[in-house]
Amino acid sequence: MSAGGAFVVRGQFITLEGTEGVGKSTQLANVAETLRSSGLEVVVTREPGGTPMAEAIRDLLLTPRDEPVHEMTELLLMFAARAQHLHTRILPELAAGRWVLCDRFTDATFAYQGGGRGVPAERVALLENLVQGDVRPDHVILLDAPVETGMARARKRGALDRFEQETVAFFERVRHCYRERAALAPERYHIIDAGRPLDVVSAEVSALVRGLVGAG
Amino acid sequence: MSAGGAFVVRGQFITLEGTEGVGKSTQLANVAETLRSSGLEVVVTREPGGTPMAEAIRDLLLTPRDEPVHEMTELLLMFAARAQHLHTRILPELAAGRWVLCDRFTDATFAYQGGGRGVPAERVALLENLVQGDVRPDHVILLDAPVETGMARARKRGALDRFEQETVAFFERVRHCYRERAALAPERYHIIDAGRPLDVVSAEVSALVRGLVGAG
Repeated sequence: MSAGGAFVVRGQFITLEGTEGVGKSTQLANVAETLRSSGLEVVVTREPGGTPMAEAIRDLLLTPRDEPVHEMTELLLMFAARAQHLHTRILPELAAGRWVLCDRFTDATFAYQGGGRGVPAERVALLENLVQGDVRPDHVILLDAPVETGMARARKRGALDRFEQETVAFFERVRHCYRERAALAPERYHIIDAGRPLDVVSAEVSALVRGLVGAG
Repeated sequence: MSAGGAFVVRGQFITLEGTEGVGKSTQLANVAETLRSSGLEVVVTREPGGTPMAEAIRDLLLTPRDEPVHEMTELLLMFAARAQHLHTRILPELAAGRWVLCDRFTDATFAYQGGGRGVPAERVALLENLVQGDVRPDHVILLDAPVETGMARARKRGALDRFEQETVAFFERVRHCYRERAALAPERYHIIDAGRPLDVVSAEVSALVRGLVGAG
């Protein structure tokens, strides 16, 4: 019940996850369009980033630099950006009844810093609880494709950022971690085989999203 | 025992703390000079900062901005800068036998984010343990003076950063927290009455530091 007495239904929080080059940008636009065509108000955002301060942290994280970045520095910067984004933007938008669609969220931290870099998952979970309390995405759409398929697409896009410069083995660990997390909570995680032709993938994602709206 | 077989005595880690305008810069130079005149190799550094990456995080933290910075964002940025500084610079310097003298460290986080902003001390302690393990300064020199004395001096220096723009009540809480922490571990914390004339304060700090070197 808002101060004015009108009842506002909280929006849903949907995140899109996956390794490089799986078609995340294309499906992000597809999910947003599908939600909007169902009459919902949608906010599209991304992590790390989503507010000017969080975007400045993103720049720090992604810019290749001579100084080796300690894994704990990287982990804390990710969660600093997340704290700012979640508390000053995502939660207020959800409370106002809008649906929030986010390009990556904490699953990416488990996958990249945990699976990829080898930071113990308990450390990521500790920060997740500290920053988010019990807030988790309502639905996670995981675009899954063989690492080589994705990397070939990412390389075509041009200059690689600090993460995209990682090795195939790194991305194999990231992919494995994503799939493991998805398998643990199938009611919230939706794995999409993104190695198929684009129109097939897009149709499956649209159908999934229409189902989420209907069930909402 | 180093790889070459020579025994290297670990340096000591000394931090300087205090609210705005208590004469921290002057005493930092004084402590460094006193240590060097005792024949020690000394690294002088500061927090947040101390490496290019950590200095970039410092800029994010101190630049006044329109966007309100969430207290958890601020806390995580402080510890991100600290992780980078501690693991890539301070610990290697100490291991190489140099003494490290740092302008502010985790006591400032307890005092400013904890005492000043009201972040629960347990949250600060949780991050302290996550980032530092059991590393703590060997000695903390706390320059203590009435808040109004310090603020008058800080204002004379010109444009105020995001912290210097806080209220007197904020700095009273910061000072109180510093004094409380110092009282709990008097073997590591040395409170200096910085409200007295500069030559008196400097003489007391020099004498203290000569004592630390002698006892080292």
